[in-house]
Amino acid sequence: MRMRMVDLIAKKRDGRALTNEEIEFIVRGYTNGDIPDYQMSAFAMAVFFRGMTEEETAALTMAMARSGDVIDLSKIEGIKVDKHSTGGVGDTTTLVLGPLVASVGVPVAKMSGRGLGHTGGTIDKLESVPGFHVEIDNDQFIELVNKNKIAIIGQTGNLTPADKKLYALRDVTATVDSIPLIASSIMSKKIAAGADAIVLDVKTGSGAFMKDFEGAKRLATAMVEIGKRVGRKTMAVISDMSQPLGYAVGNALEVKEAIDTLKGRGPEDLQELCLTLGSYMVYLAEKAPSLDEARALLETSIQEGKALETFKVFLNAQGGDASVVDDPTKLPQAKYQWELEAPEDGYVAEIVADEVGTAAMLLGAGRATKEATIDLSVGLVLHKKVGDLVKKGESLVTIYSNTENVEEVKQKLARSIRISQVPVAKPTLIYETIS
Amino acid sequence: MRMRMVDLIAKKRDGRALTNEEIEFIVRGYTNGDIPDYQMSAFAMAVFFRGMTEEETAALTMAMARSGDVIDLSKIEGIKVDKHSTGGVGDTTTLVLGPLVASVGVPVAKMSGRGLGHTGGTIDKLESVPGFHVEIDNDQFIELVNKNKIAIIGQTGNLTPADKKLYALRDVTATVDSIPLIASSIMSKKIAAGADAIVLDVKTGSGAFMKDFEGAKRLATAMVEIGKRVGRKTMAVISDMSQPLGYAVGNALEVKEAIDTLKGRGPEDLQELCLTLGSYMVYLAEKAPSLDEARALLETSIQEGKALETFKVFLNAQGGDASVVDDPTKLPQAKYQWELEAPEDGYVAEIVADEVGTAAMLLGAGRATKEATIDLSVGLVLHKKVGDLVKKGESLVTIYSNTENVEEVKQKLARSIRISQVPVAKPTLIYETIS
Repeated sequence: MRMRMVDLIAKKRDGRALTNEEIEFIVRGYTNGDIPDYQMSAFAMAVFFRGMTEEETAALTMAMARSGDVIDLSKIEGIKVDKHSTGGVGDTTTLVLGPLVASVGVPVAKMSGRGLGHTGGTIDKLESVPGFHVEIDNDQFIELVNKNKIAIIGQTGNLTPADKKLYALRDVTATVDSIPLIASSIMSKKIAAGADAIVLDVKTGSGAFMKDFEGAKRLATAMVEIGKRVGRKTMAVISDMSQPLGYAVGNALEVKEAIDTLKGRGPEDLQELCLTLGSYMVYLAEKAPSLDEARALLETSIQEGKALETFKVFLNAQGGDASVVDDPTKLPQAKYQWELEAPEDGYVAEIVADEVGTAAMLLGAGRATKEATIDLSVGLVLHKKVGDLVKKGESLVTIYSNTENVEEVKQKLARSIRISQVPVAKPTLIYETIS
Repeated sequence: MRMRMVDLIAKKRDGRALTNEEIEFIVRGYTNGDIPDYQMSAFAMAVFFRGMTEEETAALTMAMARSGDVIDLSKIEGIKVDKHSTGGVGDTTTLVLGPLVASVGVPVAKMSGRGLGHTGGTIDKLESVPGFHVEIDNDQFIELVNKNKIAIIGQTGNLTPADKKLYALRDVTATVDSIPLIASSIMSKKIAAGADAIVLDVKTGSGAFMKDFEGAKRLATAMVEIGKRVGRKTMAVISDMSQPLGYAVGNALEVKEAIDTLKGRGPEDLQELCLTLGSYMVYLAEKAPSLDEARALLETSIQEGKALETFKVFLNAQGGDASVVDDPTKLPQAKYQWELEAPEDGYVAEIVADEVGTAAMLLGAGRATKEATIDLSVGLVLHKKVGDLVKKGESLVTIYSNTENVEEVKQKLARSIRISQVPVAKPTLIYETIS
């Protein structure tokens, strides 16, 4: 009997689980245009209310992963572990983790984008390094990963068209906030990009997509469950994004912070999160028999300078001037620096991550539309984090700009940093790990 | 601040009530195309799950009623009471009620359609009368109603385009079964057609849209509530459609049955339902001070032949040969008659209304598509109803056909009529009245 989308919408609406074949039918039909947007949006709303079983979510993930090209990384030796973060402000982990895990033998075959946001994507950030580029072909890419254990290429091909189409539709039909839809969207992209194993960094807090811990935990659990069901080992960390991660928010500024971290001199929270996520990657890549041993490998690599060396080799292989690692002033520099001074003595009680991100964007660090250009040199560097003691007049933030008027940015930052007269505890960085 | 549909979908999704302005915005935007189908279907699904308050449902009704032309019946004297039935099998009430209530002074300004279904619409049925037509203009229509208290015109103008568009969308997005959406759809059409007061016949049972009593009661209550809120006195009856109403299912056959009923010799259930609904119409039109007195007026009109006379005047005024009333053989006659005989002695336990309707459609009595033509002469006449005693070999149904092979129809009917060895109670005809 021929399937009809209206019957499948009704089935989901009435709380019954769809079969793998039914989910395949929906994803294939929606991708090729047989199923119109108006049926898909009604379906998405039914999923919002009724949810999906773990089996349905896994089927949706695989159907979307296979809706377009699937990258074949089989010519790369070893277990390819990909990392995904659900996004936040000042998240420099990808820049650090790539060379860090590669330095202990984990193959990092990264396909990355530019994207919209408070700052550029990973490729934008790396382009702060003079000469660095991602215009390499697939063969070169594979050769570089096999040789150096790390290379980055821009997104090519037609990956997960079903997800792209569905995501755009959900965005305008109030059906974004559905755990099975979010989880399958993220996982389908990682699987289409060729990951054998996946490490997830699910952020929670005011600066994250998932504001509350319970939601973040449900999302993390759903993704780990998908991984299990589709044969991709998956681990997830739920980490804090109630304030920006690290100190820097900006493109070149984050590259500099990544270099500091690879030298063992980075911000404490960024370093800790990178060691945690990195341990999972090393463990899943089977380069260490336990998480503790994986972490020890990474710490030794930083101490012995191997992580930094890997970063240099990586930059150099893709045309970048590796001397920035020793002399970060070779990175793009903004014309002006401004200090936001503490208005009173006290303790930093809150740094609203979203607002700090928006301030960086106002300076020109991010894209609001696909066509916008970004300024790699501008951004912010925090000097204090939540829980820190501050004295009146001390700088809370340095603003790096190429414009003379930063009044709006200053005011936004001033409003987003709250100072308390009583001591404030530092927030927990890693709430839970799920595997 | 500019409203955005995505925010209104989210508001409904989260269970919050929309304001009148927000509902106006949605209906206007959807009607003129600013709001695309894919947002409207997500909204409809959110309404399916979250429902609507009485205030929201009333606002939706009025917004849809005003989305296109609104018929002005102010030149017709008296209170214009419209009747609506939620549909069933063999429902001849409209044909009887029009002349019946007109005969006691209630103005019946009926705008009617052809529609799809087991049999034709009211206009199709009336066209069984030789010469009868609805090609009259608005002025003639109003003049006829003022003179004879009854006239029927075909649907003209652009009535409730929002409802038409939304209904078509709901049909393919599994969002039909929502009480506020069904209630507002029905009520908006009645209001746009110029009704001052409305009598609703909500059917329940296997042959009805609302299979169960509770659903029918919720729908009836929602519509009466809308009427109250928008200043149209509304009363509703919940009546049985577990078996066909009356005996006849077909176009000319139902006209004959309507004539019988106007003569006081119609099927008991049809007559009772017409007297009940008619009493409400007479009472709401303020032609009687109580329901009992309204009913007495109608009974007297039938007894004294006034109802039948009104029917003749009405047919004659629109070109019809009124002599059919005295000689129903002048109505279109099918070539063949066949009897479906009772296979055993017993009591009729069930007559599946839907199946009987489909049998009539197979004979050619109804349209499956807009383009299909219908055969006015064919159909079925039941001889037994649920609870009746039958003897083996007695005719259960007479089939009127223009084809020689009615084997499929016979088999369908045989399967749809169940005979029991133990006595079966007659079903209740009128379950509840709501006002």
